[in-house]
Amino acid sequence: MGGDLGPHPILSAARRFASSHPQIDIILVAQLDALDISLLSNLPTNLSTFNASDIVLMDDTPATVLRHRQQSSMWKTLELVKSQQVDACVSSGNTGALMAIGRHLLKTYSGIDRPAICKPLPATNGRCYLLDLGANINCTAQQLEQFATMGAVLAQVAEGCARPKVGLLNIGEENIKGVEPVKEAALLLQQNEKINYVGFVEGDDIYTGNVDVVVCDGFLGNIALKVSEGAAKFLAQSIHRLFSNQWYGRFMGLLAAPVVNQFRAKFDPARYNGASLLGLQGTVIKSHGAANELSFYYAIEMAVRHVENQIPQKINAQFTNLYN
Amino acid sequence: MGGDLGPHPILSAARRFASSHPQIDIILVAQLDALDISLLSNLPTNLSTFNASDIVLMDDTPATVLRHRQQSSMWKTLELVKSQQVDACVSSGNTGALMAIGRHLLKTYSGIDRPAICKPLPATNGRCYLLDLGANINCTAQQLEQFATMGAVLAQVAEGCARPKVGLLNIGEENIKGVEPVKEAALLLQQNEKINYVGFVEGDDIYTGNVDVVVCDGFLGNIALKVSEGAAKFLAQSIHRLFSNQWYGRFMGLLAAPVVNQFRAKFDPARYNGASLLGLQGTVIKSHGAANELSFYYAIEMAVRHVENQIPQKINAQFTNLYN
Repeated sequence: MGGDLGPHPILSAARRFASSHPQIDIILVAQLDALDISLLSNLPTNLSTFNASDIVLMDDTPATVLRHRQQSSMWKTLELVKSQQVDACVSSGNTGALMAIGRHLLKTYSGIDRPAICKPLPATNGRCYLLDLGANINCTAQQLEQFATMGAVLAQVAEGCARPKVGLLNIGEENIKGVEPVKEAALLLQQNEKINYVGFVEGDDIYTGNVDVVVCDGFLGNIALKVSEGAAKFLAQSIHRLFSNQWYGRFMGLLAAPVVNQFRAKFDPARYNGASLLGLQGTVIKSHGAANELSFYYAIEMAVRHVENQIPQKINAQFTNLYN
Repeated sequence: MGGDLGPHPILSAARRFASSHPQIDIILVAQLDALDISLLSNLPTNLSTFNASDIVLMDDTPATVLRHRQQSSMWKTLELVKSQQVDACVSSGNTGALMAIGRHLLKTYSGIDRPAICKPLPATNGRCYLLDLGANINCTAQQLEQFATMGAVLAQVAEGCARPKVGLLNIGEENIKGVEPVKEAALLLQQNEKINYVGFVEGDDIYTGNVDVVVCDGFLGNIALKVSEGAAKFLAQSIHRLFSNQWYGRFMGLLAAPVVNQFRAKFDPARYNGASLLGLQGTVIKSHGAANELSFYYAIEMAVRHVENQIPQKINAQFTNLYN
């Protein structure tokens, strides 16, 4: 119920995913009487509905949600995860609410103070996993270390790299720079033999391929993500404008279309939709609120991969290993 | 003496600038006996040298510099600004040292606690001025308000916009979000009638053209700048790769060269070289350490524009106006 574009793209994506993946069962948890009934006709057999009598609003605070939204579609979906009736939840609703209900119902694994939001970004020779993206504004050094462990597990499993390189986002590579929790986290990570810690990295290292995981607090991570998205969108628009403004550009635009389309397909933000709420005892994927059908399809795919790869269980194993 | 590539590109840029601007006098402040003497032969008449017996090293801390580097080329240059023998200083050396010596010798104007580093970034329909870019890690609300005033003056004069739109960088547009000094700064800016404050902005707004000035602390600003640079470089390389990897791409690359070169010229980081140390009683421009000849040329040009446009004096006037 939470997408900026309403339930339509989510429903279409679910239909398409269910049709192409007959082995996967999808349950649409929704306030059914608020939906156009025609949207729900002729559902594939592996796509069913589950009625909820309430919804979480985009401006509900986490406190409001925990107190008053226990009948919402978001709450009901996470209850299905908790009772293991489903393996994963995908939502494009209120992030703070998803995090709060997720923590309340699913809990974090032992050794993990707070879940973190993590997303892969395209980088030279692969992908770079950035976390936290906004769940935790102020983080302790210990929390940053936990994020590093969780991000490394995800990069290892999802990208198949044996010892993912982990960096701490900072404003310079010298040890003297940076704020206190980041400096302390560096000391913890240097002593942590389970993590292939490569040191401080700067903002541009997200893209260089020098590291597989970049760790920072949620304030910084959210800014870094939005700046990235903004810069990419601006550059893409600028290229488009050059190829459509002048006669030579227009002519070239036609001829260059195959190359430009390849570029677009590779860096389409839709392909990078889906952020993982890591640290919870269950798979929870947050889709971008403005996700279209294709974007939401990728978010469902991400959830399936998390389940198949047992990401939560592997994170738990790493913490059990580390701290017990 | 401070560029990553040594003094050569700086000297070449100065030569070229002096030759094309006979009305401008340039003084090269350097440890002359460390330079290849042939570099200094046949200087244009408006390009002279000034000997310093020491240099600032890239890993000198501000404290070390203030105590031990009073004979350095950086110190001597800022002394020339202080004594008004020159109108501006351009340096590609140690940023922390430049800031420390600048504050020590030139002082900030009354009403300005700390100088801020500010740089224009390319945006839809113009440029966006981002500050602070790393001079101040932790900022009070008052300091953020001062940065807003300084950035607005620069945008007004340099871009000729009557009432530059100023935003505070945050992780959401809702008032409930963000860290304490940012929230307090929002209240101060709402009450400040001299500033056209438009509210919180997110990372992608740097590029949308919705704001002319984006204000944040130096930790955040430095990360935002580096992430932007990284994303832009990565995308440019990816395009280049597409246009050179396949036969159709290579063919297109040749044909599209005029358009791609136009794009490169427009977004060449060299063109955006030069950051202003705003708030000091004098013009100080920091060039990127890795600046090549063309980049450093643009930094000199920026210094000349600052002097011609009386940026420091106009910032002072704004503060006199505001606070007296």
